Amino acid sequence: MAHAPVLTPQAEDFPRWYQDLVNKAELADNGPVRGTMVVRPYGYALWERMQREMDDRIKAAGAENAYFPLFIPQSYLTREAEHVEGFAPELAVVTHGGGKELEEPVVVRPTSETIVNEYFSKWVQSYRDLPLLVNQWANVVRWEMRPRVFLRTSEFLWQEGHTAHATYEDARDYAARIHREVYADFMEGVLAVDVVLGRKTPRERFAGAVNTLTLEGMMRDGKALQLGTSHELGQNFSRAFGTDFLTREGTRELVWQTSWGTSTRMVGGLIMTHGDDRGLRVPPRLAPVQVVVLAVKGDDEVLAKVREIGDRLTAAGLRVRVDDRTDTPFGRRAVDWELKGVPLRVEVGPRDLAKGTAILARRVPGGKEPVRIEDLLVEPALLHRILDEDQAELLRQSRELRESRTEDVRTAAEAAEVATAGGWARVPWSELGTEGEARLAERSVSVRCLVAEDGSVPASDDEPGSVAVVARAY
Amino acid sequence: MAHAPVLTPQAEDFPRWYQDLVNKAELADNGPVRGTMVVRPYGYALWERMQREMDDRIKAAGAENAYFPLFIPQSYLTREAEHVEGFAPELAVVTHGGGKELEEPVVVRPTSETIVNEYFSKWVQSYRDLPLLVNQWANVVRWEMRPRVFLRTSEFLWQEGHTAHATYEDARDYAARIHREVYADFMEGVLAVDVVLGRKTPRERFAGAVNTLTLEGMMRDGKALQLGTSHELGQNFSRAFGTDFLTREGTRELVWQTSWGTSTRMVGGLIMTHGDDRGLRVPPRLAPVQVVVLAVKGDDEVLAKVREIGDRLTAAGLRVRVDDRTDTPFGRRAVDWELKGVPLRVEVGPRDLAKGTAILARRVPGGKEPVRIEDLLVEPALLHRILDEDQAELLRQSRELRESRTEDVRTAAEAAEVATAGGWARVPWSELGTEGEARLAERSVSVRCLVAEDGSVPASDDEPGSVAVVARAY
Repeated sequence: MAHAPVLTPQAEDFPRWYQDLVNKAELADNGPVRGTMVVRPYGYALWERMQREMDDRIKAAGAENAYFPLFIPQSYLTREAEHVEGFAPELAVVTHGGGKELEEPVVVRPTSETIVNEYFSKWVQSYRDLPLLVNQWANVVRWEMRPRVFLRTSEFLWQEGHTAHATYEDARDYAARIHREVYADFMEGVLAVDVVLGRKTPRERFAGAVNTLTLEGMMRDGKALQLGTSHELGQNFSRAFGTDFLTREGTRELVWQTSWGTSTRMVGGLIMTHGDDRGLRVPPRLAPVQVVVLAVKGDDEVLAKVREIGDRLTAAGLRVRVDDRTDTPFGRRAVDWELKGVPLRVEVGPRDLAKGTAILARRVPGGKEPVRIEDLLVEPALLHRILDEDQAELLRQSRELRESRTEDVRTAAEAAEVATAGGWARVPWSELGTEGEARLAERSVSVRCLVAEDGSVPASDDEPGSVAVVARAY
Repeated sequence: MAHAPVLTPQAEDFPRWYQDLVNKAELADNGPVRGTMVVRPYGYALWERMQREMDDRIKAAGAENAYFPLFIPQSYLTREAEHVEGFAPELAVVTHGGGKELEEPVVVRPTSETIVNEYFSKWVQSYRDLPLLVNQWANVVRWEMRPRVFLRTSEFLWQEGHTAHATYEDARDYAARIHREVYADFMEGVLAVDVVLGRKTPRERFAGAVNTLTLEGMMRDGKALQLGTSHELGQNFSRAFGTDFLTREGTRELVWQTSWGTSTRMVGGLIMTHGDDRGLRVPPRLAPVQVVVLAVKGDDEVLAKVREIGDRLTAAGLRVRVDDRTDTPFGRRAVDWELKGVPLRVEVGPRDLAKGTAILARRVPGGKEPVRIEDLLVEPALLHRILDEDQAELLRQSRELRESRTEDVRTAAEAAEVATAGGWARVPWSELGTEGEARLAERSVSVRCLVAEDGSVPASDDEPGSVAVVARAY
């Protein structure tokens, strides 16, 4: 049974492979209401590790967590014209509460800029209250016509940061800081996903923003996934909600704002970046379980030894699971941990034990080798070294994939061709322009972002020499 | 200004004092939709600390986190008769999504037993899959007619545990384990809230449960607050959803279940247990900020010293904030930290600094005394010892209040009198009975729980010698 293919191969049908993996690795199920999802314990453990790592970085950037209500009066949404236009088609509306029809229907938050600004207006009085840096971990609802688990769901979990600043420059710099120090640092350093940092074109901007910074990753089918965005909101929302402050000079001015978000979509990105035909491969720094110690059989000596190894590795600072469920066949459990992408398996059976060895199976490079149990117990740091290597290798593979499938081209037609064939095209923005962008859209191809020639993020929409990164996207 | 009373005194108007404290300590605001709340950063930091401490204990009890959808098909609710009867009046209903009227309206979860069971039915096949121990951190909505921030809100944050077991005994023991090892351990050990552990009467049971275990705390006005509940669900939900499993013997049986929850209501309990006329007092083990180091004035030497002290105390494992906002008057900042209930303040001014001393202000016992800065830097553990004393003192005060205001009585009439006067009455359940309980309800007095004579939790509704704890409640 362990030899039959567990998943549809990626090369055969990538979307099917994705769905198979999500099911068989027990990451998530579809919810009963269209487009919703149930995140199962192992899938949620991945998200929890993402939350912990992100939250540390968000706090290091000075933001504090808070919580704003799920329900927003419908009238709030309409105050910022572009914002409501962008979100109106996706809203879920509550019309009844406590057995009665509501006087004013409320919407379930699709994002919280409006309700946040209502309160920022109360909290911000003077320049002393700025910058105000707030983040929330929450669920949001955007009705999805073509849902796909983790990638596009009617309800998803995310963090959304909201900040107010005294000057345009301060807001701009903070949006860029989140983009780089929080998001890129996490995605490359923990998720091991190579990301291109760029600026969205006006067409692709967040509804209500004056600038959207994005992080785009290449999935193993060559399509792009937007993994996070950080927006400069200018004074659009502060104008709509009257969020002003007393300056040092005694005048009143509207605050300058940012907002930024990442979501459970990153779990989808993780799967499509690192997964292979045997299942998920979880980067060690993210992994909720870095090492699983398996008892091959339920003999007392074996069970005692796997527990001893488990305790020792845990004490050495590794995240460890002991699998002593020997009433389930070993082969099935091994395949299951492989599906779940646990980086290292230490397998202990009676015959190995007699020789003082265990089998060490590495998920990232694949393959098995014997290891002396004594070495594991005395020198568990050897596993840390292996995990560091595997972490680096996953990022290297992700980068290599993007580089090998990215092509420099000169025209919109060439760009569309590259993208349609499953790659990314780099084309001068001066050649493409908004008209070229519109033509790409007819072929379901989009400008993922603009980057400067030196790889940095362009400071404006029309910075000379900007390059458009063009791809099909999730 | 620091001498005018900042809050309405508790003795004058307790509910007003509560509202003043919530506002002035910047814990929360009322939301725009009736009954909702905005949890501000400091209030949320308290909740985050609660989450972290609770989550560790929940995981130690073997449960894993997961996430179930916010939206539940209306038809699910109706499958368990008592459950729907209990929750129907409080539901928020979504009738429109993505610009269209929905075919079947969906409810915003008031609790998740129904949707959880739908998925447990898929995940549980055989006895090998049991026990299944799941928890989720989420928001829930129960429309509130008489909302009060943190205590009764239309939306609140909570954790809800859901488990399935092969036998009645295993489920019963697990509900009791959560009650004691997770909830009581956290409330007494971290929140420093003295709680009475008991069993709800059938009248006060969770809708759909066969037994509800509760933890009741006495607030400083003598009223009771239910701080958490752990339910035995029997086979009520497994019957309604067909959640069965293959036993070791090859037969099929319905699983036995539990559910258990605690919420942001605990923040209200914290305030009303430990707050005084100067503000909140946060138990050190919970405190997001255990020590604030304040610069009295903005002179360079002072600023350098507060930062040095802050770094040293942080390195010693304390949760520290440095307050160097010297453009705000010192008195105002000191009052603000007192309002927020930070256990220790280290105040450094130029005159003290010249003498090598700082002022140490203790929030729990009150009062200030000089401390040698050198001692703080060399021996920061002295602050750990003080914090441990203060932690113990808060629990002692909470216990003393309950003991001093609890009275043993013989009849329902006497019990009502004690409760109405702001105390708790203990009355034999055999004297009171369900009829006495109904008469108490007419005076807005309730049986908070039943306890055995030796203080343990009765094993059944009619255990001989059970004592009813009677009080007014939030």
